[in-house]
Amino acid sequence: MRNETPDLPRRMLMGPGPSEVHPRVLAALARPTLGHLDPAFVGLMDEIVQMLRQAFQTTNQLTFPVSAPGSAGMECCFVNLLERGDSVVVCANGVFGMRMKENVERCGATPIMVEDPWGAPVDPDKLRAALKANPGVKTVAFVHAETSTGVRSDAAALCAIAREFGALTIVDTVTSLGGIDVNVDAWGADAVYAGSQKCLSCPPGLSPVTFSERAAARVKARRTKVQSWFLDLSLVMGYWGDGKGGGRTYHHTAPINALYGLHEALLMLREEGLEQAWRRHAVTHRALVAGVEAMGMKMKVDAGVRLPQLNLVEIPAGVDDAAVRRRLLNEFNLEIGSGLGAWAGKVWRIGLLGRSATPAYVLGCLTALEAVLHSAGAPIQLGRAYGAAHAVLTA
Amino acid sequence: MRNETPDLPRRMLMGPGPSEVHPRVLAALARPTLGHLDPAFVGLMDEIVQMLRQAFQTTNQLTFPVSAPGSAGMECCFVNLLERGDSVVVCANGVFGMRMKENVERCGATPIMVEDPWGAPVDPDKLRAALKANPGVKTVAFVHAETSTGVRSDAAALCAIAREFGALTIVDTVTSLGGIDVNVDAWGADAVYAGSQKCLSCPPGLSPVTFSERAAARVKARRTKVQSWFLDLSLVMGYWGDGKGGGRTYHHTAPINALYGLHEALLMLREEGLEQAWRRHAVTHRALVAGVEAMGMKMKVDAGVRLPQLNLVEIPAGVDDAAVRRRLLNEFNLEIGSGLGAWAGKVWRIGLLGRSATPAYVLGCLTALEAVLHSAGAPIQLGRAYGAAHAVLTA
Repeated sequence: MRNETPDLPRRMLMGPGPSEVHPRVLAALARPTLGHLDPAFVGLMDEIVQMLRQAFQTTNQLTFPVSAPGSAGMECCFVNLLERGDSVVVCANGVFGMRMKENVERCGATPIMVEDPWGAPVDPDKLRAALKANPGVKTVAFVHAETSTGVRSDAAALCAIAREFGALTIVDTVTSLGGIDVNVDAWGADAVYAGSQKCLSCPPGLSPVTFSERAAARVKARRTKVQSWFLDLSLVMGYWGDGKGGGRTYHHTAPINALYGLHEALLMLREEGLEQAWRRHAVTHRALVAGVEAMGMKMKVDAGVRLPQLNLVEIPAGVDDAAVRRRLLNEFNLEIGSGLGAWAGKVWRIGLLGRSATPAYVLGCLTALEAVLHSAGAPIQLGRAYGAAHAVLTA
Repeated sequence: MRNETPDLPRRMLMGPGPSEVHPRVLAALARPTLGHLDPAFVGLMDEIVQMLRQAFQTTNQLTFPVSAPGSAGMECCFVNLLERGDSVVVCANGVFGMRMKENVERCGATPIMVEDPWGAPVDPDKLRAALKANPGVKTVAFVHAETSTGVRSDAAALCAIAREFGALTIVDTVTSLGGIDVNVDAWGADAVYAGSQKCLSCPPGLSPVTFSERAAARVKARRTKVQSWFLDLSLVMGYWGDGKGGGRTYHHTAPINALYGLHEALLMLREEGLEQAWRRHAVTHRALVAGVEAMGMKMKVDAGVRLPQLNLVEIPAGVDDAAVRRRLLNEFNLEIGSGLGAWAGKVWRIGLLGRSATPAYVLGCLTALEAVLHSAGAPIQLGRAYGAAHAVLTA
């Protein structure tokens, strides 16, 4: 084993996350560690909570970052809202919907599946039919932005249907928060989780969550203890505070330096403005699509449901998926994502997440991809992708 | 809310953790983020696993850092090893033993308590009696280094007794790993968890764990799924690898930059050498005790069971606990810990954890404490603590 500190490459991160982390955020990670009950740190926590509320567009008091990656944020929502024996409607149109099903089962609850094919959004009519057919369901779960397929579902519509039937909603916004409109209060969503390493452009490891008053009331009314001590909201909130300046109680030791990074990333998002960030994602997305199509390749999902921040491109016939990704990484320091599950080997997932959604990344990605595909013998006319994307970016 | 990046104080961290983080580790956190499946990162993961095995003194293949703080490492051990209906002997002699009990209950298992008073180590005879009285118990859990009381229990003896009765052991080494001898293989311990922010002197947020082959076999033989998807060993290990160069499968997105920090902290521990690190903790501990006693104060627990890295000092009668800690923080940038639970207001917890275990920190802490107590009217003769500690350090 080498004994010195590693000399790491600097990649262009254009996979499904982590995304580009700004030097300001990297520098924030290296601030001196404080104690988790230090008044100087507690002030920072309050600011993180305020800025998360702005990002989620909510006034929910119960808003904080779970001290672990997005999968733990997902689990935090399920273990707190469900009790053994519950029935839960889970809408699945990709990998992360199926992970929700896993979570429901591991809580000792029964998932009622509303399935849509990969590439399609969740169908609101199917959700309504499932709730009609299963009276007594108290919880509906769905993914706003499916990271495996690059598809956006209509969160407002799905939440409205759930409310009609008196069910609370668990919503995955891991890939959407900061990249497209996530409006927790307007949706009336109840338990919402996200990830730090997507459109917030922070390193992975934290999962912002927010809970409505209805969700908080359900947690309070539980008959049984939450199966996870680490993720038990009633305990965690003793540390994150009641939002009214109340005392902080030690629960677990918070990941101080990671939280410095999140604080800085949220500050940068606030400086840019949510709507400007969404516009930046939209424009770079259109430029990427123009370039991809100029190369004669196809986007995998319909334009109407595409996520600007996660672009699924069909791998042309005869092209070696892994070899192309390896050359992009080794020759251009460029990471793009592979397909998951049923779409492994069939698509690339090109992320324009957070700080990766820049003209330079779009143009760099397109020209690198063009060069590698051309050199591998694909019928590509060099320069067309650049031209098409550039036209969009300068329009 | 302020709009600029915060100007944080630089504290001397001498509470129960987090501990002093070396500038090399802080700088490592700020390395450019890589993808969690990037070959350049995977090499680093393998090195982390190797160095964790050295720190734990084990050859266990199943060794890796859980992507969350120590409480999640604890939960990882319990949810993987227990199934609903199991009976588990939990030895409790402080706060963290009681947290183990919570974990057992939340797994749907039954805790059989072996309790010892605060300040005493776990009594091996009581454990033996409990196992005799409860045949069929398959798991014994205890804390090696109780962070609430500063007491060390005899891990080798407790593991041996458990083995005699065919039970596997879950051992909390959160505060011990890197500070005193933790010898997983010599103990024959089965599921062991630690924390990054104690004697490894890394920021909080990661929990190294290691599992014996017996523990791995039990996980493989489970009748039911692990109740936590995030902490399910059979899934997590698909990402951390089989130790034989096998492929990595995406499970959750690992906290890349936090792992850079752990890598660097483990490198520094290896450079110093485990035994030298233990000696450093022992010497600074003796110096601290000499100074505390020279001030006329008393250590809370017996010398024979004291943890060198966590020192419980009785608060002298008439002294205002919170006021003293506030003055230490505001006037000296020095953090020491308060008492927990039954000992709140009765003791201070002074940590000499990892990089905080230095002569400068011991002398700085003693002179600051002396000055504050003296100024508050306590019958302290200035200069005596410094002299006593200095004599030990230069002996």
